[in-house]
Amino acid sequence: MPLRAKRPAVAVEACQGARSLPVRGVRAGLSFEQQDWVAEEVPVALEFNGVSHAVMLATPLDLEDFALGFSLTEGLLQGAEQLYSVEIEASELGITLHCEIASEAFARLKERRRSMAGRTGCGLCGTESLAQVARELPPLQAGHPLSRGAIARAMAQLNEQQALQQVTGAVHAAAWCTTRGEVQWLREDVGRHNALDKLIGALVRDRVDVRQGFIAITSRASFEMVQKAAFAGVPLLAAVSAPTSFAVATAELAGMTLVGFAREQDLVVYCHVERLALQDEQNPSHAN
Amino acid sequence: MPLRAKRPAVAVEACQGARSLPVRGVRAGLSFEQQDWVAEEVPVALEFNGVSHAVMLATPLDLEDFALGFSLTEGLLQGAEQLYSVEIEASELGITLHCEIASEAFARLKERRRSMAGRTGCGLCGTESLAQVARELPPLQAGHPLSRGAIARAMAQLNEQQALQQVTGAVHAAAWCTTRGEVQWLREDVGRHNALDKLIGALVRDRVDVRQGFIAITSRASFEMVQKAAFAGVPLLAAVSAPTSFAVATAELAGMTLVGFAREQDLVVYCHVERLALQDEQNPSHAN
Repeated sequence: MPLRAKRPAVAVEACQGARSLPVRGVRAGLSFEQQDWVAEEVPVALEFNGVSHAVMLATPLDLEDFALGFSLTEGLLQGAEQLYSVEIEASELGITLHCEIASEAFARLKERRRSMAGRTGCGLCGTESLAQVARELPPLQAGHPLSRGAIARAMAQLNEQQALQQVTGAVHAAAWCTTRGEVQWLREDVGRHNALDKLIGALVRDRVDVRQGFIAITSRASFEMVQKAAFAGVPLLAAVSAPTSFAVATAELAGMTLVGFAREQDLVVYCHVERLALQDEQNPSHAN
Repeated sequence: MPLRAKRPAVAVEACQGARSLPVRGVRAGLSFEQQDWVAEEVPVALEFNGVSHAVMLATPLDLEDFALGFSLTEGLLQGAEQLYSVEIEASELGITLHCEIASEAFARLKERRRSMAGRTGCGLCGTESLAQVARELPPLQAGHPLSRGAIARAMAQLNEQQALQQVTGAVHAAAWCTTRGEVQWLREDVGRHNALDKLIGALVRDRVDVRQGFIAITSRASFEMVQKAAFAGVPLLAAVSAPTSFAVATAELAGMTLVGFAREQDLVVYCHVERLALQDEQNPSHAN
């Protein structure tokens, strides 16, 4: 969670995805000079079969997961088998991910690009017009019922397991959690969309049955976060912070349970509450 | 600040930029049903002289400011005088901002688009390759010297004056502050880049001398936040949360003072500390 103070007491000698810099500061009225860890943020260019597609700013970790997750949640590929290889090339300017993809996926991508040429730019990835913003979402499976205790457990574990965040205070995380609320996969990035794409890439690669658990995120739940999770078939998304109106509407339509303000034992359910047992696990008699 | 709890005790009858929804929740072990305010997030399409440029997800407030600020900080226009008019058209799908711009600016935009056609997509706005990520920044003026008390005052005022955030807990803010730390302009948005673009649009429109003060933001300071502020000529950017490595490098190069973790009386200065007096205003003898 970027807005929680990082833990400056941790003595760190090296940290993947972070860089140490000299800083000046004031704490408790005293001015100081020290070395401080800041999160790396690097331009990452995605290339498909030699054609440049997009440049994102990202944390240079788990980039194969990112390439696969981004390609799937943005609808560029139909399945993981269409991504043959990812070659990572670093230069002074940033990192290029050279992705080799199946010819049918590349033909569709070229067609989509051609229809956009000269007419559109950026913002939402490859979005040409307002009509294309809300892509058709795959129908979600029911998923396993969840208890609110599982959400609380996942949020506590998520907080503990953010290695890069604890050192830098500058990155978001997305985690895959079992129905018991145990964090099994976790990815961090300076961008919350990237963290989610990396997580989804890892889940798909490892053939995880995403109906048997949920995703927890350290950020707000905006439209794009819900859309990406729905594309991956995830039945429940739990966010530390608030959702937006468009995120709620999209989750409602997709059949996804959307939880916000999930902090310690508290939470708010914005739609599809039927997948979640709100009564207390220890004291079921206190249920409303 | 999205990660601070919003203030649920506020009785709100209507709030621009927010929508009331029925929710289920658990707080202090008790399950409840209530109406909750969530921030509106709307697809906003930017069109220049009838040609679609980008679709962004944004809070539907201060959209003229957004159109001007975005156009300037993305280098699409050379000055406010090149933007003749902004017409706002709402539909079921979202909002279109029809911008009429000077013919020389439009010709340059078309040329840029043509060179990109079929080769690139999205991510960083209109960025075709890694080489284009870091645009050349205008040289920053020295700016007025600032005290750390001014930063603390600005951060406190910023927190108090976020009307939409207090109701929804889901939006970021960017504020223009005088050298004394008084907040004079404040803009909110579900996107932190949008909040900053809106603020810069307002400052440019009102012909504010941006050397005489600084910008305070409720988010992290990433590369794009620093780049946008530098394009506007702002000498100091103060963020509630952490900067990234690329943000520090960009601020260093631009000559901008970058402050992070600005909370109550504490702060960390990442570069160009010469513009900031770190000694205590009340107790100058305690200076280091």
